[in-house]
Amino acid sequence: MTVTLDDIRAAAALIEGAVVRTPSVYSDALSQALGVDIVLKLENLQATGSFKTRGALVKLQSISKAEARSGVIAMSAGNHAQGVAYHAQKLGIRATIVMPRNTPFGKVEHTEKLGARVMLKGESMAEATRFAKELAEKEKLNFVHPYDDDRIIAGQGTIALEMLADDPDLDTLVVPIGGGGLISGIAVAARALKPGVRIFGVEAELYPSMHRALRGLKFAGGGQTLADGIAVKTPGRRTRAIVKRLVEKVLLVGEPDLENAVQMMVAVENLVAEGAGAAPLAALVRHRKQIPGRRVGLVISGGNIDRRLLATILMRSLVREGRVARFRVEIQDTPGTLAKVGRLIGEKDGNIIEIDHHRLFYDVPVKMAELDVVVETRNAAHVSEIVTHLTEGGFPTRLLSSTALENAD
Amino acid sequence: MTVTLDDIRAAAALIEGAVVRTPSVYSDALSQALGVDIVLKLENLQATGSFKTRGALVKLQSISKAEARSGVIAMSAGNHAQGVAYHAQKLGIRATIVMPRNTPFGKVEHTEKLGARVMLKGESMAEATRFAKELAEKEKLNFVHPYDDDRIIAGQGTIALEMLADDPDLDTLVVPIGGGGLISGIAVAARALKPGVRIFGVEAELYPSMHRALRGLKFAGGGQTLADGIAVKTPGRRTRAIVKRLVEKVLLVGEPDLENAVQMMVAVENLVAEGAGAAPLAALVRHRKQIPGRRVGLVISGGNIDRRLLATILMRSLVREGRVARFRVEIQDTPGTLAKVGRLIGEKDGNIIEIDHHRLFYDVPVKMAELDVVVETRNAAHVSEIVTHLTEGGFPTRLLSSTALENAD
Repeated sequence: MTVTLDDIRAAAALIEGAVVRTPSVYSDALSQALGVDIVLKLENLQATGSFKTRGALVKLQSISKAEARSGVIAMSAGNHAQGVAYHAQKLGIRATIVMPRNTPFGKVEHTEKLGARVMLKGESMAEATRFAKELAEKEKLNFVHPYDDDRIIAGQGTIALEMLADDPDLDTLVVPIGGGGLISGIAVAARALKPGVRIFGVEAELYPSMHRALRGLKFAGGGQTLADGIAVKTPGRRTRAIVKRLVEKVLLVGEPDLENAVQMMVAVENLVAEGAGAAPLAALVRHRKQIPGRRVGLVISGGNIDRRLLATILMRSLVREGRVARFRVEIQDTPGTLAKVGRLIGEKDGNIIEIDHHRLFYDVPVKMAELDVVVETRNAAHVSEIVTHLTEGGFPTRLLSSTALENAD
Repeated sequence: MTVTLDDIRAAAALIEGAVVRTPSVYSDALSQALGVDIVLKLENLQATGSFKTRGALVKLQSISKAEARSGVIAMSAGNHAQGVAYHAQKLGIRATIVMPRNTPFGKVEHTEKLGARVMLKGESMAEATRFAKELAEKEKLNFVHPYDDDRIIAGQGTIALEMLADDPDLDTLVVPIGGGGLISGIAVAARALKPGVRIFGVEAELYPSMHRALRGLKFAGGGQTLADGIAVKTPGRRTRAIVKRLVEKVLLVGEPDLENAVQMMVAVENLVAEGAGAAPLAALVRHRKQIPGRRVGLVISGGNIDRRLLATILMRSLVREGRVARFRVEIQDTPGTLAKVGRLIGEKDGNIIEIDHHRLFYDVPVKMAELDVVVETRNAAHVSEIVTHLTEGGFPTRLLSSTALENAD
């Protein structure tokens, strides 16, 4: 038994009107930048901010009235939790969500706001899952698996129906892989509708679980990834079989690739994608030659990224591009010096946004001091120009930020 | 002579395939938050990041071959510049864009990348416009007005055709007003297709030019607004007549409304909108009762916001919500103190992200010092809790950030 196109069509009929019919949108800027037609499927605009709401609804619709009365339980620190809680509330089903103890407060709060009972248990996903399964047995709750379930897979597959209906010319789809539910549903639907379409999966280098499982290898990896939505150690059994059969290749992307992709989505596309959601773009940028399509659909699976993290990513990108730079300037500790430094920077159209002036801690002669200045600049060449101008003006200056000065030309 | 539905239909045929067919998307989260069905028209996903590309293309298509050979000129520091440059390049027309001297480098660079000749002239928009018109005459260039032009108006009106085709149930449209080109085209098309539809315009309080012009008043206002895309002092003559005839009301929004709306678009909707693009949401939040519709379309006109500004808006929103807080802690300047403060904050699950320790500058006894600590927190109540815990633990603590403590309950 496996999921079929008919199951996915049935799922689509079931969820119609109860989830957002998200748009596919052609990206002019990304297409030009990468030299291939790029279409984005915007599941970051889905209710609860990710595709998870689709499979969750199909699953919740499938349980019996008696089961619904006793309630459902899920383990998730993220999008699956919200997907389940959201529809359980609408359907009047009591939902319990188990999250690991270290789950960020924002995610707990979001899930509680959707009416779920949230329990913080266990130090790891594995411990939280064990607890959830025990509680499911004890309280007779229906356990909603995040990916290794035919109904979940069928629900996520509805995305491919919409993508090919909106844009029948797509010849390639690039899809994030966590446990594999999303890509499995999409692969079944897309390959059935259009056998020539090629499906690529994307995992974070730190969590290459499906990549290894397909080669018969056990999981190796772990750590902090920006793509926490696909940081899964154990891919599903059902999903693995489908991926093996229908997916071209699983591509891996590193943390800098993911960070850059999140940043590009904002700067080029005006869209907020979480790390996992931007992973298909990261894969296309990094593995351009391995993805031979002419019209590529990227599944932007979700947008639930912490605002502070997003702000940090934006600022780091400006630093890398030389649009914000931090200088350390050697000065004589005499009146008027600050004005001179300010004037020199102003002469080169640098806009000072922060200044720190310390005397005690630096390795300079006692009558000297150092000034740390953060300046808004135009690009790496402009940063170089300011360093030179200050140094020639009598203030030896070093660049402290990691602007790529080698790109100055 | 004025713009008609037929003109707008002709414009739509003209630009089909050459601009992005942007999606209208139902926002589940905003609809729930504001208690009315909300549909977003995503012109922030348009080529060049704003709707301006529509009118620009219609205008450029209309000029004669002889005129095309001598080239076009426009004055704009923003989206109009990019819209004109983008299509001029594709059509092989030489474009000159005049920008005021103080235009941010990023906008100059974007426009130059689109192949335009950029000239930085004049200290103000008015001076730059004067220069552009003189140069137009001297070099026989076709001046492309940003809004007071029937073809520009017809081009922007294509947005309404798409909105009502995608979602015929819309009964209300909320549209930003700068010079009035966008709302004029939309009002003509929407009211012709569906006479009962109500159109609301939105201006920044600092630039209430149309609001005043409709009352026969001269412009009064000015200053720095987050909605620089609609910071216009002189509405068009054509557009004013159309707005007077077809628009229900012009609503004004303040800078805090705009900042909050940009932030909501990111946090709730995973979309990047510039100040002007988020203005319709700002208006809906602020003037909810004045907008009586049951299904409201918000025209998210553009997404071209500076990344540093966006990062700052995100961080400020976290501070306001009490998710990041800055404390000043009085300490005895003895070994081990820092560890104690760290432990107390940790006991309350606060995550320290920055520390400053100064001794010289504070108004405390000489054996005391003060510590400034930036902590990631859960909400305003949590901030209060940490202040109390530190103070009761022997370290008198004040909150330095502007977290709204009165919202703690």
